[in-house]
Order: sequence, then structure tokens, then C-alpha cells
Amino acid sequence: MKKAELLMIPGPTPLPEAVRAVMSSPAMGHRSAEFKDVLKRVFPSLQRVFRSKNQVFLYTASGTGSMEAAMCNTLNAGDKILVLVNGVFSQRWSEIAKTLGLNVETLDVPAGEGHTPAMLKEYLEANQVTEYKAILLTHSETSTGVLNPVRELTAVIRQTHPDALVIADTITSLGAAEFALDEWDIDIAVSGSQKGFMLPPGLSFLALSDRAWQAHQSCKHPGYYFNFTRYQKSQLENTTPYTPATHLILGLDAALALMLEEGLENVVKRHAQNQAMTRAGLKAMGLELFVKNDQYASPSVTSFLPPEGLTVDAIRAGLKKRFAIIIADGQKELKGKIMRIGHLGHVSERDVLTTLSALEAVLNELGYAVPAGAGIAAATKASREAVASHA
Amino acid sequence: MKKAELLMIPGPTPLPEAVRAVMSSPAMGHRSAEFKDVLKRVFPSLQRVFRSKNQVFLYTASGTGSMEAAMCNTLNAGDKILVLVNGVFSQRWSEIAKTLGLNVETLDVPAGEGHTPAMLKEYLEANQVTEYKAILLTHSETSTGVLNPVRELTAVIRQTHPDALVIADTITSLGAAEFALDEWDIDIAVSGSQKGFMLPPGLSFLALSDRAWQAHQSCKHPGYYFNFTRYQKSQLENTTPYTPATHLILGLDAALALMLEEGLENVVKRHAQNQAMTRAGLKAMGLELFVKNDQYASPSVTSFLPPEGLTVDAIRAGLKKRFAIIIADGQKELKGKIMRIGHLGHVSERDVLTTLSALEAVLNELGYAVPAGAGIAAATKASREAVASHA
Repeated sequence: MKKAELLMIPGPTPLPEAVRAVMSSPAMGHRSAEFKDVLKRVFPSLQRVFRSKNQVFLYTASGTGSMEAAMCNTLNAGDKILVLVNGVFSQRWSEIAKTLGLNVETLDVPAGEGHTPAMLKEYLEANQVTEYKAILLTHSETSTGVLNPVRELTAVIRQTHPDALVIADTITSLGAAEFALDEWDIDIAVSGSQKGFMLPPGLSFLALSDRAWQAHQSCKHPGYYFNFTRYQKSQLENTTPYTPATHLILGLDAALALMLEEGLENVVKRHAQNQAMTRAGLKAMGLELFVKNDQYASPSVTSFLPPEGLTVDAIRAGLKKRFAIIIADGQKELKGKIMRIGHLGHVSERDVLTTLSALEAVLNELGYAVPAGAGIAAATKASREAVASHA
Repeated sequence: MKKAELLMIPGPTPLPEAVRAVMSSPAMGHRSAEFKDVLKRVFPSLQRVFRSKNQVFLYTASGTGSMEAAMCNTLNAGDKILVLVNGVFSQRWSEIAKTLGLNVETLDVPAGEGHTPAMLKEYLEANQVTEYKAILLTHSETSTGVLNPVRELTAVIRQTHPDALVIADTITSLGAAEFALDEWDIDIAVSGSQKGFMLPPGLSFLALSDRAWQAHQSCKHPGYYFNFTRYQKSQLENTTPYTPATHLILGLDAALALMLEEGLENVVKRHAQNQAMTRAGLKAMGLELFVKNDQYASPSVTSFLPPEGLTVDAIRAGLKKRFAIIIADGQKELKGKIMRIGHLGHVSERDVLTTLSALEAVLNELGYAVPAGAGIAAATKASREAVASHA
């Protein structure tokens, strides 16, 4: 018998039935009154998720498109920027920046670790005279499962470099970790549909501060497809400057309704619970977590190492073949070294328990003895504690 | 009773059931072996549709994204280009070009008319010394319903400006009109999913010649999200550089299968038949066609004027309210002056007859007397003739 796959990767995440249902809608005119009504609901809901009083731009593009949009709309070739790098996706900020002719400096920490406010403070104090036009952060570094404390890091930046644009990749953190653009004084945040928004990929979102909008006014080559000015004008009239991905937006409308119905705080609690369960379960099975520090662990994805003698390939293949459960490999240098369980988006406590039970069976089958039910026992306990701590 | 809307606009077009079915698939990992198999089918099929031996790049973006990609990947700020303008979408080429800092010259003809090879020849001979880096054409100008003869225009360009890149917008022509990138010696063609490809919007496609690829090698700021080099490398391995719109691509796989099963030549014939029926039907109802010259009429969209005393709004509203049939208004200066019937993509002879019958009823209701069945009689005759001429 073939069951549908259970996708436990850090995006695309499983899709709610309500989203799948509208994805197969008949064709819809993107300039119709009906579609404007959809956008009229979607735009303010996006503002609630980003916690911003300003418009959130809706791009038909994947998250990387929004990352380029963040920079090409606010910075000019030659501008000095600082990128905090600790994995593949924070590295992408600096790759894009180089393509745009920006003058890139990086502050690197090893994969699996986060940037601490103390470390950033020290670095920025030593570079007090450098005029960084922007400092780029990654909230949840998807390639390793680290959550960088963007709120605290931004506070540190404001002490020495108050005018720098703080630009954050919140692609796998939004709708999973707490985030508040305005209150935290962040200038730009970008996110993607196939993550906390529980949609297929193809849409991305960009929220921005007044400071970022000001920077856009003196940007010389903001391009066309991602141009802030064009989106700002169109969205005021509940439309988009170019033909948008109508069906993904119908899905977005359904997904945002689910998120707001659950309550954004509850969504964040559910992810914290998924994370606590996964970490506790893996540890109880004697597995080594890649992110050691609980405080820096992403609520969206948990990485762990294969036990001595087993390969990442064998474990992932066992989960897929016997249980139709998909977990992710490491990326680039971490390929074959770590595995990543995504517990992001439309993922419940049940999915986490399912994955941990299946992992126990696969590990035993591959010759790594796990005490029967150890992972599940620890995860269930962590779940109870997570619920209690939020009560 | 509420029937599903019949979308007779020049995109988004109606969706085949096979496309709708896969659009509601469960989430799918974009790096999975299963998804690579999908791309392995999709990439060569796209090459068949564009009739190109080279890779066709698949972007998660709407058509406008591909238009920007065509220019930002091959041209540098300050480059001289010529844009053939006869409507809103050909005008967009020049808008994008200005944002990119290109030196834009336009050759304008009035809306509703096409660029003739003779006119272009004369113009280029008079500007023989001008070193145009690119000349930009629009195959089917969606805003008016004009089909520009890009094959003949390209032949003219090669006589005086053999090294200029010929870049064509084939957004509403591909899968509707005959097109052959390699054979016609065109350098770049871009198209979008919600047109001849019978999908919801959100994907666009870019085909290119060796000459365009060479131009890319000396492009200084090709950007990141649309960067040819990144797509070229990834697509060789049946993947994409960034997370693609998985569900639209599942739809694309289904739609390409339908197109190839029908046969690309038959697809073109069906559109010619739709066009002949629509034009004959409208004329027989005494309505004035906006594109006078049959040779320059698009097989995707037919524009016509409201009869004396009636408004575009009233006719469109009547079709929508009583029959749930949607036709398009004019755009920009033509808003309220013309209406556009799309007969593009998943549109059959039945849909055309349905639309013409309903239009007759609405016109009569609004006080414009149409001889009973005149439109249908003429359309049916045109259909028979179209079939006979292709036999």
C-alpha cells in the first residue's frame, strides 16, 4: 500500500486540505472584482503576520527573489554592507550582494552556531567608523537549524549604527518564531510561501519600515519586476503591478485564515512544542543534535548527526521506503553529515510523534539499538512541559 | 443557478481538468527524485514548443519577470536599443529598458496596427549606422489583438543589423501562433504560463539563441534571481537554482502533455479557427473590429468596438451577469473604447459559439438589434472554411 508522503523537511511543508482545495479552482481573472476582494483580505493579514503598519509587498517569486528585491530596491552599487553568515542561506545574502556590486563584509560563525549579541556588539564597536548602509541577518538559518536572535542583534546595531538598514531573512521563521517588524525596529523582512505560510512555493513577501522606504527613494537602479514603487501604488488599489500567481494567492487567503483562526501566538507555541518534542526525542535516542544550544535552536527545523556507523543516506532511505516519511539531508559541506527534520508550517504534534517512532524503527533495523519507545517517551514529556510552560 | 465563469479574456485562460487535478496535489519536495523526473519531462517539452535546440529557462515569476530577465542578462546600461511599439505590452519593453538604464529608441505605429516589414526595412536602412544592441518585438500585442510578423521583421533586421539581438515577447502567441526560435533566427523569446500553456499565472519561460548566450557572457550586472548562468547550470541537472513553484510545474507537465498530444500544429490550427470564427461572427453582428487587417490579427485575442449608443461596461456587465462569461475591457487609453475576447489556450470552438450567442442576446437586450443567429451562422461558416483550408 502506498500512503501519501509525510514531508518533514524545512519547506515545502505539508499543505492543509483547505489550501489544496482552492489550488484546483477554475481560472480566475486577476483584475476581477472577486480577485480584488481576495487581495483586500490578504494584504492586511500579511501585515498582521509581519506585525507591521506598512504595506507588505506580495511577489510572484520564490524567497530568493524577495532577498534580491530587498537589496536592489534600497542599496546602490559600491555601498558597504555587513552580512552575518552562519550557513548556506545567510551566505546567499552575500552572494546576491556581490552580483549587485555591493561592497560586502561578512561576520562568520561556524555552522550550527548563532551570532550572539555580545559578539556583534564587540565587532561593531571595533568598526564604529565604518558606514554600513545595511546589515543583513538570517532569523532561522534553514541549512543548520540555528535561530539567530534578530531582535537582540538589531538592538545592538542601533547602538553604534543607528542608520544602517537592518534586513532580515525570515523565510523559515515567520509563522514559526515570534517576530515583530515595527516593534523590533527591523527595516526589511522577507519570507516565502512554502514555509510557515503552509502553501506550495511560488510566492514571497517583503515587509519594510519607513527607513527602508526612504532608502528606496535614493536607489538608482531598483529594477522593474521587484520595484517597490510599482507594488506600493498597485497594492493601494488592491491589485498587483503584474499578473500575480492567482491560485497560490487563493491558497494564501485560505492559509492566512487558518493562521489567524489558530492565533499567531498559538502558531508560535505549536512550533515551540514541535521543536521541544523533536529535540528531546532525538536526544533520548542517543542522537547528537547539531545545534547544541537550546536558546539558538530554530522552531522550524532540527538537525542531528547519524549515529556512529550509520549513514545519512541509509536513514533517510529507510524512512522514505518503509514509512513514506521524508526528512532532509544537509546542504553543501554538510551533505551526508547531518539530517534535518522540518517541523514547520502545517505540522502537528502527531506528525512529530509519527516521525520519531518511524526513526526509532529505522535505526533499530539498521543495527543501532534504541531502547523501545525512548524517543516517544521523552517527546511526550517535552510536549507536556511545553504546554504547561505556556499555560 | 450559478455556473462557473467562462473566462474569455487573453489570459488567464480556462484550465483543463487535468491541470486543475494536479494543482491540488499534496506538498512535494522540490529536490526529490520524483520532482526531478517531472522537470526531466518539462524541459525538453518546452524546447519543442519554442522550437529551440537550446535550454529554455523556467522562472517562477510572471511574464514581466522574463521580459526583465531577457534584457538584464544580455545588455548593459547605456546600450542602444530599438523597441517596436504598438500597444501597452510593447510599451512595457521600453519601460523596463529605461529602468535598466538602456538608451531607448522606439518605432511607433498606432494601436490596432502592426509593424510591416517594409516600414521596418525603411527605418533600419535610414539608421544603418546606429549600433542597436537589441531590437525588441512583440509577437501578439495583447492590448489590441495585433499579431506582428516577427519572422519577417527578423529577416529584415538581419539585412542591415545582423548582430543585433532580436528579442520577442511571445507571451500570448506561443501555443497559439506558429513560432520557431531557431529557424526564424530569433535570439530571445519569453512567454507566460496563463496563456497558451493553459495554466494559472506564476511561471514564465525564456528561450535563447547562442548569440544571446554570448551576449550574456559580457553582461556586467545580470542580477541574481533571473541570472541565466545559474539556470543553465541547474537545469542541466534537472533542477532549478531556487525553490520553484512546484504545483504550477506539476500543472505545466500535464498541460505540455495535452499540447503535445493534440500536436503543436493542431493547436495552432485550433487558434486560427477560433480567431476566424470570432472575427466573422462579430462582423456579421455589424460590430467593428479594432484590427482591420486580417493578416495582422492575433489568433489569441480579438478586439472590437461597442456599437453606437452602447458602452463597453454595459456589454461586459450583461455577459457577466446573465451568462457568467467574462471578456476583457481595453487597457489604458483604450479602456472603455474597445472590448477584447480572448480565444487563447484551453478554448474550443464550443466556447467561441457560446460567447457569440451570449453576446447576441446581450446586444439585443441592450437595444442593439442583431438579426437572429447572424453571428453564429457566420462563425459556423468560418469554422467550416478554416477546417477545409487546413485539410
